[in-house]
Amino acid sequence: MDNNRLGILRHSTAHLMAAAVLKLFPEAKFGIGPAIENGFYYDFELNKNLTPQDLLKIEKQMKKIASQNLKYEKKEMDLTEATELFKKLNQPYKLELLEDIKKYGTTEIEKIAPTEPQKVSGSQKNSKFQRSQENKVTIYQLGNFVDLCRGPHLDSTKEIKAFKLQKIAGAYWRGDEKNKMLQRIYGLAFKTEKELSDHLKFLEEAEKSDHRELGKSLDLFSISDQLGSGLVLWHPKGAIIRRIIEDFWKDEHKKRGYQLVYSPHIGKLALWKKSGHWDFYRENLYAPIKIDEEEYLLKPMNCPFHILIYQSQLRSYRDLPIRYAELGTVYRYERSGVLHGLTRVRGFTQDDAHLFCTSQQVEAEAIGVLKLAIFMMKTFGFRDYQVALSTRPEKSIGSSEMWDKATQALKGALEKTKVKYEIDKGEGVFYGPKIDIKTLDALGRAWQGPTIQVDFNFPERFDVNYIDEQGKKIRPVMIHRTVLGAMERFIGVLIEHYKGVFPVWLTPVQIYLAPVGKDHWKAVDKLAKEFETLGLRVWADESRETIGYKIRKAENQKIPYILVIGDKEMKSKKLNVRLRGGKVKPMTQKEFIEMVLREIQDKKIR
Amino acid sequence: MDNNRLGILRHSTAHLMAAAVLKLFPEAKFGIGPAIENGFYYDFELNKNLTPQDLLKIEKQMKKIASQNLKYEKKEMDLTEATELFKKLNQPYKLELLEDIKKYGTTEIEKIAPTEPQKVSGSQKNSKFQRSQENKVTIYQLGNFVDLCRGPHLDSTKEIKAFKLQKIAGAYWRGDEKNKMLQRIYGLAFKTEKELSDHLKFLEEAEKSDHRELGKSLDLFSISDQLGSGLVLWHPKGAIIRRIIEDFWKDEHKKRGYQLVYSPHIGKLALWKKSGHWDFYRENLYAPIKIDEEEYLLKPMNCPFHILIYQSQLRSYRDLPIRYAELGTVYRYERSGVLHGLTRVRGFTQDDAHLFCTSQQVEAEAIGVLKLAIFMMKTFGFRDYQVALSTRPEKSIGSSEMWDKATQALKGALEKTKVKYEIDKGEGVFYGPKIDIKTLDALGRAWQGPTIQVDFNFPERFDVNYIDEQGKKIRPVMIHRTVLGAMERFIGVLIEHYKGVFPVWLTPVQIYLAPVGKDHWKAVDKLAKEFETLGLRVWADESRETIGYKIRKAENQKIPYILVIGDKEMKSKKLNVRLRGGKVKPMTQKEFIEMVLREIQDKKIR
Repeated sequence: MDNNRLGILRHSTAHLMAAAVLKLFPEAKFGIGPAIENGFYYDFELNKNLTPQDLLKIEKQMKKIASQNLKYEKKEMDLTEATELFKKLNQPYKLELLEDIKKYGTTEIEKIAPTEPQKVSGSQKNSKFQRSQENKVTIYQLGNFVDLCRGPHLDSTKEIKAFKLQKIAGAYWRGDEKNKMLQRIYGLAFKTEKELSDHLKFLEEAEKSDHRELGKSLDLFSISDQLGSGLVLWHPKGAIIRRIIEDFWKDEHKKRGYQLVYSPHIGKLALWKKSGHWDFYRENLYAPIKIDEEEYLLKPMNCPFHILIYQSQLRSYRDLPIRYAELGTVYRYERSGVLHGLTRVRGFTQDDAHLFCTSQQVEAEAIGVLKLAIFMMKTFGFRDYQVALSTRPEKSIGSSEMWDKATQALKGALEKTKVKYEIDKGEGVFYGPKIDIKTLDALGRAWQGPTIQVDFNFPERFDVNYIDEQGKKIRPVMIHRTVLGAMERFIGVLIEHYKGVFPVWLTPVQIYLAPVGKDHWKAVDKLAKEFETLGLRVWADESRETIGYKIRKAENQKIPYILVIGDKEMKSKKLNVRLRGGKVKPMTQKEFIEMVLREIQDKKIR
Repeated sequence: MDNNRLGILRHSTAHLMAAAVLKLFPEAKFGIGPAIENGFYYDFELNKNLTPQDLLKIEKQMKKIASQNLKYEKKEMDLTEATELFKKLNQPYKLELLEDIKKYGTTEIEKIAPTEPQKVSGSQKNSKFQRSQENKVTIYQLGNFVDLCRGPHLDSTKEIKAFKLQKIAGAYWRGDEKNKMLQRIYGLAFKTEKELSDHLKFLEEAEKSDHRELGKSLDLFSISDQLGSGLVLWHPKGAIIRRIIEDFWKDEHKKRGYQLVYSPHIGKLALWKKSGHWDFYRENLYAPIKIDEEEYLLKPMNCPFHILIYQSQLRSYRDLPIRYAELGTVYRYERSGVLHGLTRVRGFTQDDAHLFCTSQQVEAEAIGVLKLAIFMMKTFGFRDYQVALSTRPEKSIGSSEMWDKATQALKGALEKTKVKYEIDKGEGVFYGPKIDIKTLDALGRAWQGPTIQVDFNFPERFDVNYIDEQGKKIRPVMIHRTVLGAMERFIGVLIEHYKGVFPVWLTPVQIYLAPVGKDHWKAVDKLAKEFETLGLRVWADESRETIGYKIRKAENQKIPYILVIGDKEMKSKKLNVRLRGGKVKPMTQKEFIEMVLREIQDKKIR
């Protein structure tokens, strides 16, 4: 079933749900009911607040109607006739839509699009009513339910076999909080029962991997209402993961000829006026702070600061490329509605770098970044990714020659590194072409990952130069790039990707030592000290809980190795190593240590 | 000569200078002229702007007068008589001072204290005019120069043997910028020529070690007017030093049972109202930023954020002590006049930690911090330090019992660690007693170093608890502490302490490789790769400069090891290793590597 056909199925299922609602709640007033990704929704005004119990009833009713193989009957009528019909049916929202069609020839569905963060599929366009010729509109009838709808729909309910109602939410009529709050029911619809159950399984897995829940249960981080939305407090265990990643990141950058720098979190507003951000991205910037009669801004990006470091000396072509890297924490405004755990925040640490190079060096630099990006993704266990090269958009600066040269350089880099890519025509930034990489996680979801952006704008605006072999001042090309994106989002994605079951090199606690009784504390302390001397992260749990409880606790904390130490183990020459999954393996201490150290050394994925 | 006597000498030298100025510039109007640390100054109004040439003339004139063994003649006269005298002398500033004495019985010298950041010695009090009995004031005359002055002074100029005029500066009359700008001449005065020349040598050394100059010539950092005053950009070489210190700091904290955390740079203003900072330290806080109708503050300290992490779970007595450590970058307002390189800035990274413990654990925790602080100071090459225990101030919170207990705990910690200390009575913070450590650098200057502050206030204000053995809610004690202070100031002091000649483990470039000609590039590249594989920081300089020039360049960059690679070295089995100071030592590559690695491993001071 192609996407369009699936969209029709979902839209028809929305009508089916509306028909069931009308049957159970004859007073229902209907808003709109489009198809969305994986399903549909419909908005209603009812005399009562729906409960999960009601959803079951509605679902049952839907099945009953579906089994009757009811027809979706299409009628064309003129606007006056339709208005009469919906007046008779007492449907004020449909009447309002008819008024709009009279006035504008459309119901401006764009303005009443869902406010939920769910992606709306292309088939939503089906619910865009448009005046057909001669002031005619289309009406679809399913049993007693009559809807103003452009269609198309299925012929009958026979094809509707796999659906499930998901949840109830409030939604303002037309997305405007000045309007009445309606009740929205979300549902899933697929062609087959198999597809539906696969999707339900996916949702269940996604829920289990939700980094906000895991962040809490594994004590990795918190976002406190007292502190402020979108601002992350990294707890000790989360900070361990973050530090390991940061150290690894720094070392890899050092190896590849990057130079680390540090810059502050505020700077004069004049810098952001010069850069163009104040004009172009004002809605994402915080209000300036006045210091000694000058305005300062919480930095939304690190670029101007790196330019100032570049400009602190005269640079020659011999110095290029210069690669400044910084784990720079930036602050950008996001509406509170879109904030989401670690993956959408207001303060985040970019793994940022700016490369200053000659235009001849762009390809080689892009190759270096691509290799580093792919190396990073592989090391962190992401096997799949999607790569896109975005080319010149309509509104842009710089000559065609510059664009062609830079675009060719990025293309060359992709081809020489044998990376498969698609071209996103016209999707480049106004200041240059770019490569975006999306990483696919264990559940197949795509996340914004590395990005490489060529920039003609900054060097121009900030008058950045180098001296060429002839002693002439030349503009370098600037490349903005991140390979992880931001520490917050990256670790959020890692948590979901691994469902909290981190590779041994990243996991906050590597070894859990559980003494059976107080008699075994000494032996456990000795072991702990030995492991810690080797740099291993150990939790020697001398609480008075039972061994069974302790093991469950350690398993819930997803600790890779659990060692119970009792009389038996103290007598034996072997440790009983409980691996993830519960298998117990007897090993000598030496064998165990070698195994753990090797896993860390190799950064073994699982 | 005791301090008081030296103060009198310096004050008398100020009068001597005034007499010389009067001789050369008969129109001079005199402001005030106190003794200060190491010397004196005097403020004048003149018809011309003084030049360095004038200073020499004045100095010459001073010597001439001094050699005449002129007497300092003291006269007592009543206010009316004195007013008549200074009217006749046409000295408006002295008349203004006389007016004040008439009105207030004092000239309120405190309000006209020097605005320069120089410390004013106790002898300044000598220049505090006070009405003696029966409206009498004292006048001192030296040759033609007559001054309103309480004295005391030397008997004659005979004793004045060692002085030097230093510099000219502008100074508003009475330090008020609404008043006229006068010209101030600073001078040094000592008892003997030897003491003067020692001090001049000290000043020369201090100038050579100025971290602002070294920061520039070694390309470590910059402070850009475009970015904003007091905000530091760390260049690659400075960032290398900073990263080494940060990593070392983190590892040492980990070893000692601290847990690293990360927190953002803004937070809701409500937190700072709760903490008391908004009321008590408003002048050091930046203006709040409004986000979604709530006010946020650029964080001036990390404490409330660590409290939020502590409070993210219920804590039991079994969990204590909890030690959260963070390299937390904070922002505090400082007047632009007091900003100074890295040592006085507006944005700085505290090496912060907060310990939450029971009141019984305070001593043990303080011992741990003291040991860590002393270990850190020694590792970084500071052999001397001054320790002070500050006790309960007049304005303070908490019961006497709490204060006694905490003060005893800090005392106990100092005594058990055998650290010599003084007691600064009443100098504690309002919320608890504290230990302050000042490190003495190579020139004997004292710098604010580690600090340990016990705090009864925060736990109370934020309702911080733990559950004790009986299941009761108890307030933990909170200890604020830093061991380096701030990365910026600490590295600034390090630069001055070492005059940029860093120990090998800290220095940005450890080995400089200088090929004699192009024929030696390959050999140099090979060596560089070998050294880099071992983690050494190498600069293979393949520029076309002469060997002599290269060596000077590397020496100016204070690189510990310079290796010239030419035909001779390529044939020989030995490297000619040029050490700091210029001594050349032939060594095999193996010997050289072993030496360097050992120095790094041992963190050898020089």
